[in-house]
Amino acid sequence: MSQFKNATVTKAANVYYEGKVTSRTVLLENGEKVTLGIMLPGSYEFGTDGPEIMEILSGDLRVLLPGEQEWLEIQGSATFNVPGNSSFKLEIRTVTDYCCSYPTM
Amino acid sequence: MSQFKNATVTKAANVYYEGKVTSRTVLLENGEKVTLGIMLPGSYEFGTDGPEIMEILSGDLRVLLPGEQEWLEIQGSATFNVPGNSSFKLEIRTVTDYCCSYPTM
Repeated sequence: MSQFKNATVTKAANVYYEGKVTSRTVLLENGEKVTLGIMLPGSYEFGTDGPEIMEILSGDLRVLLPGEQEWLEIQGSATFNVPGNSSFKLEIRTVTDYCCSYPTM
Repeated sequence: MSQFKNATVTKAANVYYEGKVTSRTVLLENGEKVTLGIMLPGSYEFGTDGPEIMEILSGDLRVLLPGEQEWLEIQGSATFNVPGNSSFKLEIRTVTDYCCSYPTM
């Protein structure tokens, strides 16, 4: 799906790491929230409240998921899941475009 | 207005200047297009096809509009118009959040 229809978009951006990571919050027609974001090259760590599904639309990066020893390598597009109440590390090599969704139970 | 309702959001980002300027394309309920974007500190120049209305949501920057000698200083939020078939220069001092609309005649 390349577009979200009948969505509510919050105008103001979410800004992290001095703008090296930014996103827009979108409320979907089914009530679910997603954020569409960009990560510039660098190393980041993000905590989660609830579980998250990270869809990498494009980019070259690696991800260290909670409890894992091995980094997950991603070139191009891929999706990974992050459990709630945890955190994950990212090492971004090229500008990375992502869509993060927050599944409600 | 802090949100756009019943909008269509294109998932993939628009990326310029190696990710230092990025935006998302949003089609509004009335059919008008806007882009919600972020500019990181730096100097940029953008061309226009049709006229554009640039709403700065937050940031510290200055803008040189076509045909002008004096730079337009912006701290915080402001709106400026750019004629079509022209270009404008920006010098971004702090992470700047913007909404650009493309009025159709």
